[in-house]
Amino acid sequence: MEVEVAVAKVGKWAAGESGDTLEMIERPRGGLSLVLVDGQRSGRAAKAISNLVARKAIAELAEGVRDGAAARAAHDYLHAYKGGKVSATLNIVSVDLATGTLVLSSNNPCPAILVHADGAVQVLDQPSQPVGIYQRTKPAIAELPLQPGLTLVVYTDGLAFAGENRGETLDLPAEVQQRVAAGHSAGQLADGLLERALALESGRPRDDISVLVLQVRPEEGHQVRRMLVQLPIS
Amino acid sequence: MEVEVAVAKVGKWAAGESGDTLEMIERPRGGLSLVLVDGQRSGRAAKAISNLVARKAIAELAEGVRDGAAARAAHDYLHAYKGGKVSATLNIVSVDLATGTLVLSSNNPCPAILVHADGAVQVLDQPSQPVGIYQRTKPAIAELPLQPGLTLVVYTDGLAFAGENRGETLDLPAEVQQRVAAGHSAGQLADGLLERALALESGRPRDDISVLVLQVRPEEGHQVRRMLVQLPIS
Repeated sequence: MEVEVAVAKVGKWAAGESGDTLEMIERPRGGLSLVLVDGQRSGRAAKAISNLVARKAIAELAEGVRDGAAARAAHDYLHAYKGGKVSATLNIVSVDLATGTLVLSSNNPCPAILVHADGAVQVLDQPSQPVGIYQRTKPAIAELPLQPGLTLVVYTDGLAFAGENRGETLDLPAEVQQRVAAGHSAGQLADGLLERALALESGRPRDDISVLVLQVRPEEGHQVRRMLVQLPIS
Repeated sequence: MEVEVAVAKVGKWAAGESGDTLEMIERPRGGLSLVLVDGQRSGRAAKAISNLVARKAIAELAEGVRDGAAARAAHDYLHAYKGGKVSATLNIVSVDLATGTLVLSSNNPCPAILVHADGAVQVLDQPSQPVGIYQRTKPAIAELPLQPGLTLVVYTDGLAFAGENRGETLDLPAEVQQRVAAGHSAGQLADGLLERALALESGRPRDDISVLVLQVRPEEGHQVRRMLVQLPIS
């Protein structure tokens, strides 16, 4: 089988750079981890915070530290560094080849959306707190076997709240389910959801928006790993 | 304009996992860096080495350390850790938005290939040593303005030596030039070069092969960052 991950990301309109940070790292025991962080506020200040949190989580994961401990470490680091005054949401999505599982670690009030192989949608909304503010914050963790047909969608609140000022937000579980049923790839899903959100914001998003989609597909027979990155430069 | 980066990577036949490591990180002052490491030998031992070197370089770059210093740090770390007995090649490719330049740092006897906007091919073969063995190893650095039409191809020796056992290797500068002239995207280039190499190895590569292609394109008008990853799972 094959795992396909797609990320689409846009910054708040006219804010210069996105305050969200997305990083990926190979897991030393096999597989990969993606870290998505939304720093409090937007622009440069948010970017510095999300960078700090993502860097800490990535450094831990790269050394083989388990996901829950990496999330705790990222919290402790931000909490100590900023005295509990600055928050960030943190999601870690791991394809762990040592255990054959998909692991989602959340410090994010925004739920994640999981579509199972039979098309059933599950909203992963175990309560969790952002990192940085409260003592001893820990992540909500969901772990499930890597199986063809799984789709996981993780996003920052810019996606959930797009269109809120005109009273029309996306029904994300329904949107995701429809697109998966229509056979959309991870890339099409990430692009499609971001496009819808941008349309609701008239192309001028009032917040950073990031969407991460992971799909497990039945593809067999090749061993080529691929990565493609597009980075617009103003 | 837009930067598109594509990586295609395959492990030595039947060796389990690739001994090459490719990692990407956002630069704190804007842009991104890609680190490609080929650890001595293949399989698990090589993977551990390439992981160590890549992790060190990435950690430095994530903290805003300049590329040449990050490469030196990675060398010093491996040299201290393994007593100068183990080597690795290291390339760092950076899109540095703070300076508006493309920076290539090489500790790799394999040259890189650059195609300019006018179609001229340049082989970047300043002499450099792998990291880990010799005292005070430093990288060869090439830096040039980010301009539409540039294509940079960086690879591990598995690509250069593919087909050597049957006396037929790729003429990489010519291959790259032709494909760029034919309008191939970064993704098509990376896939196409890897495919040619795999054909020369009858689909059973005797070494890990990694190809990284970076293109600067004139595309304007959108602000969406995208990443796509495909990870085959056996």
